[in-house]
Amino acid sequence: MQIQKYKCIVSYDGSNFSGFQIQPQTRTVQGEIEAVLKKMHQNRSVKVVGSGRTDAGVHAYGQVIHFDSPLEISDHQWLKALNSMTPPDISFTAIEKADASFHARYSAIKKEYHYKIYTAPTRDPFRRHFALHYPYPLNKALIDTAIAHLIGTHDFTSFCSAKTAVDDKVRTLLTLDYEIADDHWTFRFVGDGFLYNMVRIIVGTLLEVGSEKRSPDELPWIIVQRDRKLAGKTAPPEGLYLWRVYYE
Amino acid sequence: MQIQKYKCIVSYDGSNFSGFQIQPQTRTVQGEIEAVLKKMHQNRSVKVVGSGRTDAGVHAYGQVIHFDSPLEISDHQWLKALNSMTPPDISFTAIEKADASFHARYSAIKKEYHYKIYTAPTRDPFRRHFALHYPYPLNKALIDTAIAHLIGTHDFTSFCSAKTAVDDKVRTLLTLDYEIADDHWTFRFVGDGFLYNMVRIIVGTLLEVGSEKRSPDELPWIIVQRDRKLAGKTAPPEGLYLWRVYYE
Repeated sequence: MQIQKYKCIVSYDGSNFSGFQIQPQTRTVQGEIEAVLKKMHQNRSVKVVGSGRTDAGVHAYGQVIHFDSPLEISDHQWLKALNSMTPPDISFTAIEKADASFHARYSAIKKEYHYKIYTAPTRDPFRRHFALHYPYPLNKALIDTAIAHLIGTHDFTSFCSAKTAVDDKVRTLLTLDYEIADDHWTFRFVGDGFLYNMVRIIVGTLLEVGSEKRSPDELPWIIVQRDRKLAGKTAPPEGLYLWRVYYE
Repeated sequence: MQIQKYKCIVSYDGSNFSGFQIQPQTRTVQGEIEAVLKKMHQNRSVKVVGSGRTDAGVHAYGQVIHFDSPLEISDHQWLKALNSMTPPDISFTAIEKADASFHARYSAIKKEYHYKIYTAPTRDPFRRHFALHYPYPLNKALIDTAIAHLIGTHDFTSFCSAKTAVDDKVRTLLTLDYEIADDHWTFRFVGDGFLYNMVRIIVGTLLEVGSEKRSPDELPWIIVQRDRKLAGKTAPPEGLYLWRVYYE
């Protein structure tokens, strides 16, 4: 029996999940995918490994997972079978055979997250799960100044949930920019790795800067102080998307 | 006590409603709005009149309603109060004082509906409630021919749910066209009035024509036969939006 490793790109609406990672008695993305794979493997468990967790309410446009399987079916058949069995809020967009050495988490070299907000004066019912409603004017020049302080390699302790167990909090933010289309803003983050809640805390801080509640000149000081309490509020999950995971 | 009539534009995500019209023991848009108005009027009932019903799962970008109220508050305060009390899947986008003679339903002269589909090979979890997934190639020339037969004044009995009680089924379809952006299609309908399920049955028929399951040359015959069974399947509700209601 030949075991083959598969790499998949998965898209999900995080609204009705308690996050990606499997947990007992709660609906998770990993749990749903493992249940589908179990059905496809005569009730034998198949372990799914993701590039990383996403929290409850956080979406993925391009989460990457891997798993091993002895089933001899084509990539096209895999995609069809998986999509016919996954619930409607999860979709496989690609599947391919991977080397045995590939690992969805450890082989990742960069990740890209997007955070969407809209500044319309009234709530948009169609976006309530998919973007943060922030109905305040935003000063682009101030946001640009803050972004310039954040890009690069820093100890991001101040922008990381105090709950994090990781010791090394130095990360490199390669790209941080935004696109505006009418009243919709998309902040784009690319980095070699992200700490727990890092994107959401940076967005929360940028929004406070943009709406002139704090000065962008505080940023260098907030970074060196390595104190979560100094940065802005954690922006809510509904605006966040794990957009893409990069491999060699 | 001065009674003032108000005209409002309301946007709602129809996914979690049993339609617009109030019904006992079920969640409706009219029911939610009347509950909010009742709270604002010391527990006195305020009747809401909409431009028309929308079915379960059907959305509205620009539904129009009217109601009467003795409250003396500014339009801006009305908007703020209503949006702070309505559930997140309903939003008031505009409110203005209207003449006593205005009627959301009877004063309407035209209505515009949009129907959204996407033809991507795999399901998009973010669009599952907001567009029909139709992963088949569509032949534009065939659709254009079918559309040319439908535009104008016809007896639309063949494109109307057999359940309809209305006697006069002659309607004028002023505009029927579509816009394509990547794999997303938006069909736009403007007419002086629409019969029950008319947009969804026309869309279902156009998709059958576009995917070469039936010829566009059947259309004139289907129209004159006045038989619902001859037209295509009713397209599902999630792609449909009451986009705009026009008044004098």
